[in-house]
Amino acid sequence: MTTVSDRLDAMQAQFPDMRLLGGSDIPERNRTDWSFLPPSDPLAVARPTSTEDVSKLMAACHASGIPVTPQGGLTGLCGGSRPLDGGIALSMERMSGIEKIDPDGMTMTVLAGTPLETVQKAADDAGMFFSLDLGARGSCAIGGNLSTNAGGNRVIRYGMARDLVLGVEVVLADGTVLPMLNTMLKNNAGYDLKQLFLGSEGTLGVITRAVLRMHPKPGCVSAALCVVDGYDKVLELLRTARRSLGPMLSAFEVMWGDYWHQATECVPGARAPVQIGDGTHVVLVEMQGLDADIDTPRFETWLEGVFASGAVTDGAVAQSLGDMAAFWATRDAAAEFANPAVIGPHISFDVGLPVKRMDEFAQQSKAALLTELGCQSVHYGHVGDGNLHIVAWVPGASPQPLPDVSRIVYGIVRGFGGTVSAEHGIGTLKKPYLGHTRGPDEMALMRRIKTCLDPENILNPGKVFD
Amino acid sequence: MTTVSDRLDAMQAQFPDMRLLGGSDIPERNRTDWSFLPPSDPLAVARPTSTEDVSKLMAACHASGIPVTPQGGLTGLCGGSRPLDGGIALSMERMSGIEKIDPDGMTMTVLAGTPLETVQKAADDAGMFFSLDLGARGSCAIGGNLSTNAGGNRVIRYGMARDLVLGVEVVLADGTVLPMLNTMLKNNAGYDLKQLFLGSEGTLGVITRAVLRMHPKPGCVSAALCVVDGYDKVLELLRTARRSLGPMLSAFEVMWGDYWHQATECVPGARAPVQIGDGTHVVLVEMQGLDADIDTPRFETWLEGVFASGAVTDGAVAQSLGDMAAFWATRDAAAEFANPAVIGPHISFDVGLPVKRMDEFAQQSKAALLTELGCQSVHYGHVGDGNLHIVAWVPGASPQPLPDVSRIVYGIVRGFGGTVSAEHGIGTLKKPYLGHTRGPDEMALMRRIKTCLDPENILNPGKVFD
Repeated sequence: MTTVSDRLDAMQAQFPDMRLLGGSDIPERNRTDWSFLPPSDPLAVARPTSTEDVSKLMAACHASGIPVTPQGGLTGLCGGSRPLDGGIALSMERMSGIEKIDPDGMTMTVLAGTPLETVQKAADDAGMFFSLDLGARGSCAIGGNLSTNAGGNRVIRYGMARDLVLGVEVVLADGTVLPMLNTMLKNNAGYDLKQLFLGSEGTLGVITRAVLRMHPKPGCVSAALCVVDGYDKVLELLRTARRSLGPMLSAFEVMWGDYWHQATECVPGARAPVQIGDGTHVVLVEMQGLDADIDTPRFETWLEGVFASGAVTDGAVAQSLGDMAAFWATRDAAAEFANPAVIGPHISFDVGLPVKRMDEFAQQSKAALLTELGCQSVHYGHVGDGNLHIVAWVPGASPQPLPDVSRIVYGIVRGFGGTVSAEHGIGTLKKPYLGHTRGPDEMALMRRIKTCLDPENILNPGKVFD
Repeated sequence: MTTVSDRLDAMQAQFPDMRLLGGSDIPERNRTDWSFLPPSDPLAVARPTSTEDVSKLMAACHASGIPVTPQGGLTGLCGGSRPLDGGIALSMERMSGIEKIDPDGMTMTVLAGTPLETVQKAADDAGMFFSLDLGARGSCAIGGNLSTNAGGNRVIRYGMARDLVLGVEVVLADGTVLPMLNTMLKNNAGYDLKQLFLGSEGTLGVITRAVLRMHPKPGCVSAALCVVDGYDKVLELLRTARRSLGPMLSAFEVMWGDYWHQATECVPGARAPVQIGDGTHVVLVEMQGLDADIDTPRFETWLEGVFASGAVTDGAVAQSLGDMAAFWATRDAAAEFANPAVIGPHISFDVGLPVKRMDEFAQQSKAALLTELGCQSVHYGHVGDGNLHIVAWVPGASPQPLPDVSRIVYGIVRGFGGTVSAEHGIGTLKKPYLGHTRGPDEMALMRRIKTCLDPENILNPGKVFD
């Protein structure tokens, strides 16, 4: 009979240069991600230091049918990087660093394990801007950002991770290395294979390197909080912001009244920079301009216009970096909701909807949750991108009734033609609901693609779909 | 023995509602595209009016192994939509029209055969802007733009066709319809299958509908022609334009001296809005601003700065729409080069290169062509995008020595790590050179994907690769 220890030894014997961590050497952090799923029991954690190591590992696992789960910063929220029991956790943490910066092409070549914040800082040091940004910036790795097609705060202006990558080096399930480190903005020579590996959550290949696209550094930033009465006025504000701020509009974050009260009245130490009064929504509008002398007055003039037109009933313009931080703190307060003094245990959603119908959805979802489950909910999101976050909780319930709440929310999403995941991905948590957004023929084609690229089904099996 | 007429009759019998055009009924235009390849001899031209028709046709051809070549506006330059002898030309010309415009989501749903110019006009009428633009706008169809991932004039600001589409309806080789008409900017629910059909030149599926992404309409436009001495100064100008104009920079088109002389001295009726004097390059810089009162002075101030710094030695700012048209006429003059009074028969290239090394490439390519073949060449391109166009000709040669010229140019492209096609695609003309840009493992994966989606190899076979 083969023991776990035998299997680990047999595996280790194939990699004299890469120590596999097994048994009690497995770091606790590599057993799960930020999905709150319980720790798993992998055979080993591999921490390669080169693409060649990754290739050898994949070839060996391919030959012996051992599942491999790629891991970046382990900040995923849906279980995508939680390893399988008995499988290999392939941590990219030792493949970290900036390899090259090209100021003329505005590209940066990086190893997949590089933390997002390191990439942002390197771009800044080189006089440029890497626009991808999300709360986990200090922990998440760029390889994970790409394989989940991360979204974040400035999608409205710069797009998602997919839009910020020109080339990738990828290791396929059988160990084949595809060195597709294209550095050019335009390349129509054959199929754009890199797209397969962006957003497929490590099920089709392991990203080991990437060529990222940078943008010019903004010269100035303006922000305002606008109190708005009614979602029609929110849409009117969005239209005028797009028209008047154009490509400088860098955030349009809407906080529904239910969210605003939680964020500014229940979070310890929070303060409300504006009073919602008779309003129904508070909108954080941000503009990344080029030149403060020209663009700050542009922003203020626009804002005076929306006040004068009645689209906005109250508001505040940031007069300092401190104000700006305080404005964003209201938007980021959701991170504090897990505090028992605020909400405590809760369920978060990340759905996408047609922009026009987001409020209608929020109302239906809120009412259904309350009626059917006595479940509270608050709403906020990147409305310009059609992305709504819902925080839902049944007061006092432990555990929170995740399946029931999900069934109600995703059922309404389906009716609205929305998506069950705008940015966080599917992982394992949302697998039951993928069919709400994608049809059976689409699911069948996903499976065919998976089989085509990974016939032994060893790359992150059981993620995205079964 | 089965005759062509028998086969056509057998095919027609399956489609009582869709008349197939065979024999002398085949329109001459459907026999080839703008690649100058000779007319082919298809079995029939099908002109479906619905996705259901396309599905039926594909299912029948899949069952009987008849090759199908999708056709849009037939403006492709590489032979991608030239049908196969004995195959079906699937013309989308009758599936044309705007189906829906959503001003809040800023999307437009269109049928694949809709001409690009019709899409642009519909966006404009709705108070928005569809940014894709290229010379063939009046003839090309949006389905062709998407299946070739068209580039064009404003990629530096808005990206390529791939960046301007949120959803597609696609018919697979076996007739399966994938109704992936996503309207949301963010959707990470499962694999982003639409990417497979963008830029794969009709070899993986037939796009029948698309949801396009629109942008806010620009409020004003400024343009200048800048005479620059040396490519280092071109790069300096690009850096400062990016920094000072940021996301408003909408074109940075560089004309090498050799091109400038052809365009302004040899084209009948042409005039040179600026004199190149001691310069080596002329750069057309365009800014799409928001508000003329604010952004026109911004552009002029920037331009004064680049004059003062010595980056630009001479130049002109457009003072009217007529000036702007005259500036763009110098850039668009290449369309006149086929005129025997200018250059006559010639060979055009559409290569991509690292931005920093484009001039070095141009010099090497020019010298090699002249030395080895007595071949003249001129250069221009979207330098901000790393995209260089070369026009090459051996004076008096008929036909022009396409294989020899291609071998030299693409050989140098390979050495520079460039791409043999930045925007036009591969079709049949560039197939021999695809391996200059893509490695053997990438080619192998492309073939696996092709077999996965089209096991009978009926969808535009022989295009992109064999």
